[in-house]
Amino acid sequence: MITLTSDFGLRDPYVAEMKGVILTINPNATLIDITHEIEKYNTRAAAFMLASAAQYFPEGTVHLAVIDPEVGTQRRAIGIQTKKGFFVGPDNGVLILAAQNQGIEHIYQLTNPKFALHRVSSTFQGRDVFAPAAAYLDKGVQPAEFGSEIRDPVTPEYARVKFIGGSFKGEVLDVDDFGNIITNIPGKDVAFIEDVVQVELAGAPVKIHFGKTYAQAKPKEPILLVGSHGFLEIALNKDSAAKKLGVKAGDRVAITGI
Amino acid sequence: MITLTSDFGLRDPYVAEMKGVILTINPNATLIDITHEIEKYNTRAAAFMLASAAQYFPEGTVHLAVIDPEVGTQRRAIGIQTKKGFFVGPDNGVLILAAQNQGIEHIYQLTNPKFALHRVSSTFQGRDVFAPAAAYLDKGVQPAEFGSEIRDPVTPEYARVKFIGGSFKGEVLDVDDFGNIITNIPGKDVAFIEDVVQVELAGAPVKIHFGKTYAQAKPKEPILLVGSHGFLEIALNKDSAAKKLGVKAGDRVAITGI
Amino acid sequence: MITLTSDFGLRDPYVAEMKGVILTINPNATLIDITHEIEKYNTRAAAFMLASAAQYFPEGTVHLAVIDPEVGTQRRAIGIQTKKGFFVGPDNGVLILAAQNQGIEHIYQLTNPKFALHRVSSTFQGRDVFAPAAAYLDKGVQPAEFGSEIRDPVTPEYARVKFIGGSFKGEVLDVDDFGNIITNIPGKDVAFIEDVVQVELAGAPVKIHFGKTYAQAKPKEPILLVGSHGFLEIALNKDSAAKKLGVKAGDRVAITGI
Repeated sequence: MITLTSDFGLRDPYVAEMKGVILTINPNATLIDITHEIEKYNTRAAAFMLASAAQYFPEGTVHLAVIDPEVGTQRRAIGIQTKKGFFVGPDNGVLILAAQNQGIEHIYQLTNPKFALHRVSSTFQGRDVFAPAAAYLDKGVQPAEFGSEIRDPVTPEYARVKFIGGSFKGEVLDVDDFGNIITNIPGKDVAFIEDVVQVELAGAPVKIHFGKTYAQAKPKEPILLVGSHGFLEIALNKDSAAKKLGVKAGDRVAITGI
Repeated sequence: MITLTSDFGLRDPYVAEMKGVILTINPNATLIDITHEIEKYNTRAAAFMLASAAQYFPEGTVHLAVIDPEVGTQRRAIGIQTKKGFFVGPDNGVLILAAQNQGIEHIYQLTNPKFALHRVSSTFQGRDVFAPAAAYLDKGVQPAEFGSEIRDPVTPEYARVKFIGGSFKGEVLDVDDFGNIITNIPGKDVAFIEDVVQVELAGAPVKIHFGKTYAQAKPKEPILLVGSHGFLEIALNKDSAAKKLGVKAGDRVAITGI
Repeated sequence: MITLTSDFGLRDPYVAEMKGVILTINPNATLIDITHEIEKYNTRAAAFMLASAAQYFPEGTVHLAVIDPEVGTQRRAIGIQTKKGFFVGPDNGVLILAAQNQGIEHIYQLTNPKFALHRVSSTFQGRDVFAPAAAYLDKGVQPAEFGSEIRDPVTPEYARVKFIGGSFKGEVLDVDDFGNIITNIPGKDVAFIEDVVQVELAGAPVKIHFGKTYAQAKPKEPILLVGSHGFLEIALNKDSAAKKLGVKAGDRVAITGI
């Protein structure tokens, strides 16, 4: 099974060209679109959506993500082997959040021409490099056959969470349609949270209660919970937490148990 | 085979999450999108589109429809077994038109936790309850295993057609892009129509001829026919019947043989 | 394997109805969307997108394209057998560019009612005629069984390239988002190009160098290359060739080796 994520939109034939390449190599592949409507070049949004969706797919799924503003430059093409499956795409951070969630085992460069199209264009490596790699991985080719292992993947700020002096320090990944503030701090790491935490966002530190559902929040009081995407999230019951707290995607966030 | 209908749009990862859940349970499922671009919360439009499309799918197809404005409340989750296949979704009417077309045999609540995800969220039961139910039905689980039978499904006005005193009384389901007025009266029920009927819509009753094709209509004269969706439809040849007759979705309609 | 191309958009149930019809006839078909977001009735854009994508699909793929502004008139329904696969759609040119690329072997009318739905509507032959034909072709029915052979397919200007007096004379198929001018002259036909060609477009003839990549172009100087779609293309490095040369889709173009 192979999932596809890109910023190509659905009007142009580019997504279909990747699928045609995959099915030529591997006619039995099951192909599932995650989304192709990501804002052009927005690797953070893509990384977040891929991390949200990937956790619901079966073991062994290959996730192909092509948000590739630096195509044709020296940026590396990589394949990541995790404890649960595989990720294929450019080495610009778009794969990292989702792969970290699953536990990264190895990262390989995709340099073996045996597993790419004969003529690799400098404008559309989604079709010429990444789609073939996904098709061959799904077919059972070992990840190590694609190229040499690397240990220094590009890791943007949004893929880094630090635990310093009792505080988780991270970043706002996304503000959703409801105004919920979605951080990059994995929910599984917050065993330390008992009840109240101190949250530093745009302005002065605020104390926020930890809960399980939006409905638990007291009126006009923000609540901290683990969203369905698996990340810590700050919400207001029936109101926009982002508006009230003056927060946007990319802002720094620190959470401290008290 | 499983079809999917929702108001989620294609930008967000929600549709893919449902597909991942289905394919984790049932890796051999064939998944076909009907539409995910329905206006948010518009169960009537969704019911109409599902009824239009479902009739073209093979016997045994499972149709999953998630337009679920009341998710997390006491609204029931249901599975409908018809003479031709299965429908899965919230008990708010979205499934009923399509299921009635196929002949309803049994309706069950989806309460058996064995056939849902372990952690059911109160915000996204499409993924946590309906997608697993569709996957298990497609895999051959008997509908009766999901929960107790019910006989009082929510049946909105648009899913009710009454035959009173020689008249069919129903509702306008949709006005399409051409201005055709699509009623909720099934075409298969109109054997009584010989040639002319009296139609009551917004204004005074009008006499309308029954025909087979748009081209049969006389210039500027409305015609009654059975549309490709299987419902009675009032049209003007190369003009908008809805505009001429001042009609919109949700209006009452009565049709009487004369 | 069957691909689908149309101008139906993704909101309405029409694409799903075609898929339901195909899967009822041929439950094992693999269905891949090329695009359904083509501008309504724009057969040239559709022909170009189908030609771009079709070359990446495996041998034996059936390509179904329904951009059918003359549905219900005398326009013919056709199936084209090429050296690599099959094309199914209306005889209005939408299939021809892609089929020519693969080498046309035979063209048949789709008139055998055995391979259409029982009731063929005059408004939606994508579902009633073309989808069944694609399903039966994919299932192995011989193309000659569909109807009589024809030798005069509708061939719009955009599907005609003439070689006269040392010049290729064709048309601008599309101007893409980058302002690249995509002609209808197949890249495989330009072995004659050594280095410089004379190009006649909107204004006076210009001399243009032939290259392999956008980056080869000198600043502010147009370059001629074979695009990833396989057609000759005129580009400016990091600028819009179409704007600079005052060119739009549909314009005539002549290219002469010098």
